[in-house]
Amino acid sequence: MYLSNLFIPITKDLPSEAKIKSHQLMLRAGMIKQSAAGIYSWLPLGFKIMKKIEQIVREEQNSIGAQEMLMPTIQSSEIWKESGRYEDYGQEMLRIKDRQGREMLYGPTNEELITDIFRTSMKSYKSLPQILYHIQWKFRDEIRPRFGVMRCREFYMKDAYSFDLNDEDAKNSYNKMFFSYIKTFNRLGLKAIPMAAETGPIGGDLSHEFVILAKTGESQVYADKRILEIDLDEYDASNKSLDKMRKDFSSIYAVTDEKFKDHEFNKLVKKEDQLKTKGIEVGHIFYFSDKYSKPLNCLIDDKQGKKTPVRMGSYGIGISRLVGATIEANYNNEIMKWPKSIAPFDVVIIVNISKSNKENLEKAEKIYKELKKQNIDVLLDDVEENMSNKFKKHDLIGIPYQIIIGSKTEQDKFEFKEQNSKIQILSLENIKSQLKK
Amino acid sequence: MYLSNLFIPITKDLPSEAKIKSHQLMLRAGMIKQSAAGIYSWLPLGFKIMKKIEQIVREEQNSIGAQEMLMPTIQSSEIWKESGRYEDYGQEMLRIKDRQGREMLYGPTNEELITDIFRTSMKSYKSLPQILYHIQWKFRDEIRPRFGVMRCREFYMKDAYSFDLNDEDAKNSYNKMFFSYIKTFNRLGLKAIPMAAETGPIGGDLSHEFVILAKTGESQVYADKRILEIDLDEYDASNKSLDKMRKDFSSIYAVTDEKFKDHEFNKLVKKEDQLKTKGIEVGHIFYFSDKYSKPLNCLIDDKQGKKTPVRMGSYGIGISRLVGATIEANYNNEIMKWPKSIAPFDVVIIVNISKSNKENLEKAEKIYKELKKQNIDVLLDDVEENMSNKFKKHDLIGIPYQIIIGSKTEQDKFEFKEQNSKIQILSLENIKSQLKK
Repeated sequence: MYLSNLFIPITKDLPSEAKIKSHQLMLRAGMIKQSAAGIYSWLPLGFKIMKKIEQIVREEQNSIGAQEMLMPTIQSSEIWKESGRYEDYGQEMLRIKDRQGREMLYGPTNEELITDIFRTSMKSYKSLPQILYHIQWKFRDEIRPRFGVMRCREFYMKDAYSFDLNDEDAKNSYNKMFFSYIKTFNRLGLKAIPMAAETGPIGGDLSHEFVILAKTGESQVYADKRILEIDLDEYDASNKSLDKMRKDFSSIYAVTDEKFKDHEFNKLVKKEDQLKTKGIEVGHIFYFSDKYSKPLNCLIDDKQGKKTPVRMGSYGIGISRLVGATIEANYNNEIMKWPKSIAPFDVVIIVNISKSNKENLEKAEKIYKELKKQNIDVLLDDVEENMSNKFKKHDLIGIPYQIIIGSKTEQDKFEFKEQNSKIQILSLENIKSQLKK
Repeated sequence: MYLSNLFIPITKDLPSEAKIKSHQLMLRAGMIKQSAAGIYSWLPLGFKIMKKIEQIVREEQNSIGAQEMLMPTIQSSEIWKESGRYEDYGQEMLRIKDRQGREMLYGPTNEELITDIFRTSMKSYKSLPQILYHIQWKFRDEIRPRFGVMRCREFYMKDAYSFDLNDEDAKNSYNKMFFSYIKTFNRLGLKAIPMAAETGPIGGDLSHEFVILAKTGESQVYADKRILEIDLDEYDASNKSLDKMRKDFSSIYAVTDEKFKDHEFNKLVKKEDQLKTKGIEVGHIFYFSDKYSKPLNCLIDDKQGKKTPVRMGSYGIGISRLVGATIEANYNNEIMKWPKSIAPFDVVIIVNISKSNKENLEKAEKIYKELKKQNIDVLLDDVEENMSNKFKKHDLIGIPYQIIIGSKTEQDKFEFKEQNSKIQILSLENIKSQLKK
């Protein structure tokens, strides 16, 4: 892609409500545009990053045998009345009347709808276990939407639901999801800590939230550093091994401020392992047993032919929120560097262009074609602009590698730079192999 | 995937309103489940097919340089008041008041919102041409939703928008999109005929609808057969060549019943080339010049520095509708056969299983693993059920190829069958090469 063709409205004008780094960066780099309070359009750069995050989440869901499907955004109020949450949910639920006067709503979450689908579809324990998930837009009518995509009204979320015959099996599903969440955040280049959490309005008695570390996060995090060193490769997909994994995570101290007690922290965590920082919640998992299956009458024949409410859990990851959270975790000293796995491009070629001299651009185009052939996703900055502006712009866009074609370019060697590192002078062959690492 | 694990609630119970073939098949094969009038959940089988269609549409949009982005589902009413369509749109628009009492709506289309994005982003002719598209859920509050996903309220659509400096350039964008639409439908295994169309509520003076041939379609189609034989490979991406392509299509007779005149048809089309059939509209493209850019004040500096309204077109493909339309075009004599490009699986292994004999299942699992290694997406029907039920079920699911493991299976040869064709006895090597064709 040539930058002059990319729809990327870079701007310096920031609205006063853009207070946090990720919100500012996303607006300045032309990743998003607000269309109403707490509602955003995703422009090509932001969209591409969000899609890469979505794909990693999808792959890790599939790898534990979860099946993808898709529920609609607009739901009937009837099932919410069955579960009893229609009144409880309050004003955060966007309530709608259709042209026939029927009470509808924009789904803020999908426990009711998935339970309705399940109860008409599966009748026997033989169909269990099942994990279904979808990646769909949700709406929560926040009274004060803020922080850009971090706390918006229309947001993109992966929510999964597990169905099991009994609590024991359900715990295995819960552990699988726990495992896949840690793997997902690892692949996104984020350090995530699972923390035992309150269950809140979803209900149930077992819950973890996944908090990634970012200095500008909203919650204070107190943890034993060693929790970040647990190596997932030491566990396999067996129930026994995943049980051990859960125990290993639980045995290491990690809490947010709600549960923090100073003397406990000092007693349980060695001075040199104490980690005090801020964090952002990016995932939340719940086991709530028959909280929804019972009122919604979602019954399964067990092995003795007796009908029993199916045991359920739900598991969310905020995809749109993760775009913002990744920026908070990686934007330092006015320089953004996207993790390789979700970077909008693998590398950018920054060309010094002057009206009288087309030589640099020709060189750059040659390299561009060469990298394209290797399936390297490359952006060519062919805009006529001075180099210092270009560098500032690319500090915002955050492509992790740069090739600089300017006065210092020799015949076969090029300036190559990883964000936050020093410039190297390398041959194209060396650059290719660095990019393919 | 093993069929016993797949969430696929196959059913014989059909609601009385399921009148057309695609609606019946999608319910019976467990592809969708209705959650409210005209609102569906997509279960794993249906979802997988829809995603494959989406991906082909995406690739063909990208191949003409269109850039993907994403607009939200909920819009503010303000921009619709600016364009004058807020009142015009009538009751099909789902109108919503948020908790602050602000007038919002669920987008039925996005001309206003994309114009708003463009006017704040691009100021100079140097940024043109641009084509932006998104694939997003829309809502039209139909008074009488029917025909399953063919005329539902919440539907999935690709809509693209082109931006040009003048009518001449805009026509080139229009032609590119026309070209990509024909290619898209070809890849989906559908025969699509472009027809000059009325512009309706979108406005403008140039429009085509794309109608695919299906005996159960809603519109009557009268055409000269030769329009189906135009070979896209004879054109390249240059403006001149695409202009010729448009002329070639226009020169061959093709109309729907609104414009049909018997004497004209007989005069212009040779008897042996006359095609009278039914069709389903699956795409619609419009050029409407400054219809939205003028009232919304979306201005561009031209080469002389004069401000001029940007010239726009819009281009829609109904993705969820295409799932139904593809069934209408391919479901014959109670046998469904998905086009290879969007089939839910490449091949199914149908195993005759009895409680006393596990040998067939073992053979099948060996083949399964072998095909998986070759990146062939295979479904293994490991359900205990008699073979005649199994065959009926797979006539619904519509996987284009079957390997049958039963009494006739020899050591190294297997029964292999393409839907609607005869059984062949082939070695696994031969089967592999057939599947990879």
